[in-house]
Amino acid sequence: MDVSRRGLLLGAGGIVGGGLVGVAAGYSAASVGSPVTPGDLQQPVTVSPGIANTQVTVSDPYGTDIISFYGPRQAGVDTPLQAHGVFIGLYLHDDTDADRLASMMRLVTDDAARLTQGRGALADLDEELAAAPARLTVTFGFGSEVFNRTRPELKPSWLKPLPEYDIDQLDPAYTGGDMVIQIQGDDPLSVAHARRMLLKDARAFASIAWVQTGFTHARASHPDDTTMRNLFGQIDGTGNPTRGSETAERVIWGVGDGDGNGTKSLQPWIENGTSMVVRRIAMNVDEWDELDRPMQESVIGRRLGSGAPLTGEYEHDEPDFDAPGPTGFPVIADISHIRRARTSDSDEAMFRRSFNYDELPTSSGNQLHGHTGVSESGLIFVAFQCDVDQQYIPIQDRLAETDHLNLWTIPVGSAVFAIPPGCEADGFIGEPLFV
Amino acid sequence: MDVSRRGLLLGAGGIVGGGLVGVAAGYSAASVGSPVTPGDLQQPVTVSPGIANTQVTVSDPYGTDIISFYGPRQAGVDTPLQAHGVFIGLYLHDDTDADRLASMMRLVTDDAARLTQGRGALADLDEELAAAPARLTVTFGFGSEVFNRTRPELKPSWLKPLPEYDIDQLDPAYTGGDMVIQIQGDDPLSVAHARRMLLKDARAFASIAWVQTGFTHARASHPDDTTMRNLFGQIDGTGNPTRGSETAERVIWGVGDGDGNGTKSLQPWIENGTSMVVRRIAMNVDEWDELDRPMQESVIGRRLGSGAPLTGEYEHDEPDFDAPGPTGFPVIADISHIRRARTSDSDEAMFRRSFNYDELPTSSGNQLHGHTGVSESGLIFVAFQCDVDQQYIPIQDRLAETDHLNLWTIPVGSAVFAIPPGCEADGFIGEPLFV
Ligand code: HEM
Ligand code: HEM
Repeated sequence: MDVSRRGLLLGAGGIVGGGLVGVAAGYSAASVGSPVTPGDLQQPVTVSPGIANTQVTVSDPYGTDIISFYGPRQAGVDTPLQAHGVFIGLYLHDDTDADRLASMMRLVTDDAARLTQGRGALADLDEELAAAPARLTVTFGFGSEVFNRTRPELKPSWLKPLPEYDIDQLDPAYTGGDMVIQIQGDDPLSVAHARRMLLKDARAFASIAWVQTGFTHARASHPDDTTMRNLFGQIDGTGNPTRGSETAERVIWGVGDGDGNGTKSLQPWIENGTSMVVRRIAMNVDEWDELDRPMQESVIGRRLGSGAPLTGEYEHDEPDFDAPGPTGFPVIADISHIRRARTSDSDEAMFRRSFNYDELPTSSGNQLHGHTGVSESGLIFVAFQCDVDQQYIPIQDRLAETDHLNLWTIPVGSAVFAIPPGCEADGFIGEPLFV
Repeated sequence: MDVSRRGLLLGAGGIVGGGLVGVAAGYSAASVGSPVTPGDLQQPVTVSPGIANTQVTVSDPYGTDIISFYGPRQAGVDTPLQAHGVFIGLYLHDDTDADRLASMMRLVTDDAARLTQGRGALADLDEELAAAPARLTVTFGFGSEVFNRTRPELKPSWLKPLPEYDIDQLDPAYTGGDMVIQIQGDDPLSVAHARRMLLKDARAFASIAWVQTGFTHARASHPDDTTMRNLFGQIDGTGNPTRGSETAERVIWGVGDGDGNGTKSLQPWIENGTSMVVRRIAMNVDEWDELDRPMQESVIGRRLGSGAPLTGEYEHDEPDFDAPGPTGFPVIADISHIRRARTSDSDEAMFRRSFNYDELPTSSGNQLHGHTGVSESGLIFVAFQCDVDQQYIPIQDRLAETDHLNLWTIPVGSAVFAIPPGCEADGFIGEPLFV
């Protein structure tokens, strides 16, 4: 592992202050309790003389990079974006009462803690599949029903379906759910393994409402903090509040007074808790392909290549919404996505953490949402914010009303969850709902 | 890119001698013809002061690693295994005659060549999605029908469905097809993009028979030549002939006399051509989980942790099938998978290049093959060999008859293709069928 990469993990851990991001390879073989140790990954592989000159040793494979599970806040919220993400919506069985729900949360918390730290799940013999977590995180979120069955008085007022929008064509197969498990990591194998282990834990208590699988770009294919591209080719995530900044702390966790440009009285539903909106948004890539490049850039208000605002040069330059173009109209169009999504109120903001999905219509059943003959593409749009009603809804209202991008996108799934705080090794996620 | 990783690419290229594996980042911005250059990936990203200490620069992102497309042989056959793979079976439209088929192959060849080298597809504005190919390869294979419509006299005698086996429960949704497009690479985004571009090219000429999407482990998460693990946790691929060795040259391409332990008279159907068997094999991971570790190891004849034969210590140690255990029976059981799959005839062999699949039953339609409540897992088993009848069938016959592994695996899809040679920049894949 090179110094810069480890620097990121340590650096970010220092900033968020919550110990969410830990030191990689910090677990010992003893605690793993299996013959697989992180060192195994580093072992030069013995190859026969015939291919001696293809023998390579990657000195710093990132498979053993670990993000702490325990801590005041759950990981997977403002953690740097990983390469792969799976989102599982669950419906609780009718007989999953508060007691059983607590058992389930104990079970999944325990296994999430083990798996993210490179240890096999409790009842798991195949520890090999867990040995390279590669920044695996597991995040749990609760829908309304979890509060109904535990402590209804704690239910945040914003925990309900989003308003119905004219742009929506919601598919029940991607909408709602009593609970969400968000699994993310840089290695598709450890993500798949964690998904299976956690679903095995959950199946006595809940059934699957929906599953969404997505990706950004492969880790180490680009520099670590390269913003991901979506399937329209756009750099997606630039306008997010800076991870760990005062603004981000306030926007996501409701902490502090913000940067002074905020006007809301933000209160987290619980300390170190937040909210999560998951929208599955189909993108009509075929029709998007038909647009010329200036048009594509005008729809968003940013350049495709660099992600810079049309009034700037670099990705993180501030857009100048007043700058007039040659014809007198603003360079960044009034109906452009970033113009419509931006407000001067720094509290009316969210932290987006979306993944691409790209599925194929096959004879065995994937549904095609009717936009393209060759794929069902889009964004698993994920936004975290302290308060859905005060922060997310005003922006979504504005975008639903007017947003040039709406011509090529259709929301097909929607769900809202309350994200509980993290826990320590002797606790479990969601514990405050059971006391 | 570090020296060892580049060493692998260069080294392997030297060995296979076919120039299949080229020098990474060897294309110039000029040839890309777009504002995106490999250098863009290396640019340190400008971040605001607030997160200055999370600023990292990966000095050698592998996004621009390139595997040559043009050459005597197609890439993706004995190319080192990438992290992601998509396999697309196609049915030719009735009116896709030889002329139209040639047009299609010209089109897809051209775009495969461009995309694998980091350039946008011909009709593509979103060049950004192609800029980081990350060892992208595209391989084309032909079923019987392609020969019927072009030069039937060239059709290899082994180009037909495999015999029906008792162990099979073939699903038409994963079986057959007139053509296959195999797309593989280390980055899920460039693989998804290539898939969409190539299907766009193909859709006027063919429809989708099936699509299978799989993965190994993420690049750089493990040392580059770590053998992949399948979803039973087993190291899978150890027994392959060594890439570039005399045995591999003979087994895959029918070149040379082999190592002297072969008895077949292997003739490739065309110089630098080979064959490909794709079997979708469901793995009952839930029941596998119930076995204890010694049992799991006995089923294969190798250790789970190291992949070593039960008679050895390291992954690449030769198994000793005669070594008796304490009870007098061989340590490696007669019905173990490697015992049944192994023969003393070094020509009766194949080069396996499989990917894991792990899909979820969802309300929107993925089919569950009835083995587990939480996932549909298995192997996209892929084998290349010069001659299916002489090399693959005897082994498959033996495994279908007796193989301990059969208790936990079910073949659910099957297809056989002829892999044509590669081509040069002025040609196209499959050209010998059109002259
Ligand atoms: C498929 C659907 C969508 C696509 C393709 C998309 C794409 C983009 C892109 C390319 C940007 C500019 C770069 C960036 O800051 O990330 C952006 C910015 C943004 N988007 Fe979206 N977006 C989508 C849906 C949404 C939705 C549903 C919301 C919220 C309701 C939203 C809220 C925002 C916000 C707040 C910004 C930052 C604006 C600023 O600079 O202040 N987007 N989006
Ligand atoms: C889901 C199904 C299968 C699984 C999980 C599986 C797994 C394995 C494993 C773990 C090994 C030992 C390591 C290695 O050499 O790769 C192996 C070896 C092998 N397998 Fe399979 N396999 C499967 C299906 C097949 C099929 C269908 C064939 C061919 C018809 C096959 C042919 C071989 C061969 C030739 C070897 C090498 C044996 C040797 O050491 O000479 N396998 N397999």
